[in-house]
Amino acid sequence: MLSAIDYSEAGGLEVLDQLKLPTEKTFVKVANVEDGFNVIKNMQVRGAPAIAIVGMLSMTEELKSLSFASTNDLIILLDQRLQYLVTSRPTAVNLATAANEMIALAHKQSQLSVEELRAALIAFSSSMLVKDLADNRAIGRNGADEIIKPLSASKNAAVLTHCNTGSLATSGYGTALGVVRALHESGRLSHVYCTETRPYNQGARLTAYELVHDALPATLICDSMVALLMQSRTVNAVVVGADRVAANGDTANKIGTYQLAIVARRFNVPFYVCAPLTSVDMSLESGSQIPIEERAADEMACVKGIRIAAPGINCWNPAFDITPAELITGIITEKGVVSPGQLSSVA
Amino acid sequence: MLSAIDYSEAGGLEVLDQLKLPTEKTFVKVANVEDGFNVIKNMQVRGAPAIAIVGMLSMTEELKSLSFASTNDLIILLDQRLQYLVTSRPTAVNLATAANEMIALAHKQSQLSVEELRAALIAFSSSMLVKDLADNRAIGRNGADEIIKPLSASKNAAVLTHCNTGSLATSGYGTALGVVRALHESGRLSHVYCTETRPYNQGARLTAYELVHDALPATLICDSMVALLMQSRTVNAVVVGADRVAANGDTANKIGTYQLAIVARRFNVPFYVCAPLTSVDMSLESGSQIPIEERAADEMACVKGIRIAAPGINCWNPAFDITPAELITGIITEKGVVSPGQLSSVA
Repeated sequence: MLSAIDYSEAGGLEVLDQLKLPTEKTFVKVANVEDGFNVIKNMQVRGAPAIAIVGMLSMTEELKSLSFASTNDLIILLDQRLQYLVTSRPTAVNLATAANEMIALAHKQSQLSVEELRAALIAFSSSMLVKDLADNRAIGRNGADEIIKPLSASKNAAVLTHCNTGSLATSGYGTALGVVRALHESGRLSHVYCTETRPYNQGARLTAYELVHDALPATLICDSMVALLMQSRTVNAVVVGADRVAANGDTANKIGTYQLAIVARRFNVPFYVCAPLTSVDMSLESGSQIPIEERAADEMACVKGIRIAAPGINCWNPAFDITPAELITGIITEKGVVSPGQLSSVA
Repeated sequence: MLSAIDYSEAGGLEVLDQLKLPTEKTFVKVANVEDGFNVIKNMQVRGAPAIAIVGMLSMTEELKSLSFASTNDLIILLDQRLQYLVTSRPTAVNLATAANEMIALAHKQSQLSVEELRAALIAFSSSMLVKDLADNRAIGRNGADEIIKPLSASKNAAVLTHCNTGSLATSGYGTALGVVRALHESGRLSHVYCTETRPYNQGARLTAYELVHDALPATLICDSMVALLMQSRTVNAVVVGADRVAANGDTANKIGTYQLAIVARRFNVPFYVCAPLTSVDMSLESGSQIPIEERAADEMACVKGIRIAAPGINCWNPAFDITPAELITGIITEKGVVSPGQLSSVA
């Protein structure tokens, strides 16, 4: 299986440069928080779970290289550096949640020596990798069961997915793409359609790369082809990831998700959000409180440095939208499939 | 105003190579039907009205260069060449309609001499240019009136358009973009949003080029951003063109139009098809009878010869979809705005 995060305690941290995919497979060394901030901001690493893991590992890599006069000095630096790190991308909640957990851990263990606390923080960040992989496999199984349930034993499922939620967006396996992998492993995937996902083409570049790599039966479509696809071919479910899920189930995800959900509703196709419970932000009542990141016009107007849009045209480039809970059939988590209204019972 | 078709009876026919826009403004000579077939098939000229005009002019350019022993010989050649020409693109009806009219004219005037018939056919094809421009201006006025009607005098209209339906798709001025121009000319356009229109980027390359050229207040968005746009900003109407309208009002237009109409309905935004009556095909009861052209995968997978999609991924590239009449608020024609159910009364 592909992996975007190459980490060992002795060997350090490298991330696959996703800007260079699918044509080049290059790893970038991440030795400290500055490196972590940059690979996240530049989208060399992306996907809400992967961002959180790389962020925390970049923090503990930095800690390895520094010496501290006291445990208190270490905690002061940790606070400052994590506050800076979480500003790299505002929409996903996982990074901020992980940073808060790491800070809480440090404050709770302030009686430890510098060496002991450093070791505890390193154990915390590397355990995120292990837990995320286990969560993804559980999400995959739960999602595959849910999608197969209404089908007779002789029918396999065709699904549509958006953006990249696979091995490249997580510790491995994936969330929505984990559901697709689990369907395939159980012999119940008939076909997966993936959208290009403009303007950054995560679908065309990354999801398509993973699907070809794993030899799944797959077809790439443009974001604008979904209505015709659902009208003319069978699609049993839509599976997407989440950057942040509010307490009421409203879900921030890659731009275009809202539109997909509207079209799916028109054709009565079940629409699932696939996310670990770390993506749920119970502090937000609804999606209207989730900040939406707007990115540079050139991401839309240029492809690989070549301008595709007419010179002089003004561009609007929001990176996410918020799908209202009422359009979401279920949220597929590591603890099971929950309806948007029931989130508080599991999160 | 921009013009994509440069024609005079003495000077011959040249078309603006739209594959080279927006970076290069190059004209291609069209001296015969083979040239006409190629510029249409390769999408150097595009847009249902422009294709029909260039097709007929390419036919009469070829006639100028040939001599015939008899009027009957001319008519036999005309039949053969037009049958070939209409296979260049199957979805738009205007080209086939114009070819049928030219053939009917020739058969009806078979008593004329070779020279007289040639002159009549040249007059027919060049009159298409003049009539299309007049029709577009009428469509623009009718559409602007319709969109302004529900607004108070102090409010101007924000509209969204898809693909390119402007000077570059017609003899000039445009259909849906003609409505945008007419709103602007009457001082009632607050803003126009145009979609990129994947996979061929007619919006980003061509519509954006026209909007910058004419200095209209405009913003480019991705096809996937429409739901967020309608949720977060004011859009008073969607205006799109048509490649073919069936008798019941179902409309074939650029891929992505169906999806736009579904999203517009969700937000109660009026959705207008803007087309000359030559785009209405009363011989087809409904949209299900309209053939949908599928184009090469490379149009999606590559931009300007550079591959953007992962190597080895399968692509599906339908060029059009069919928007059901029930999602269409009105069809804006040169004779006025008609509801889809009332087409037979004007067409």
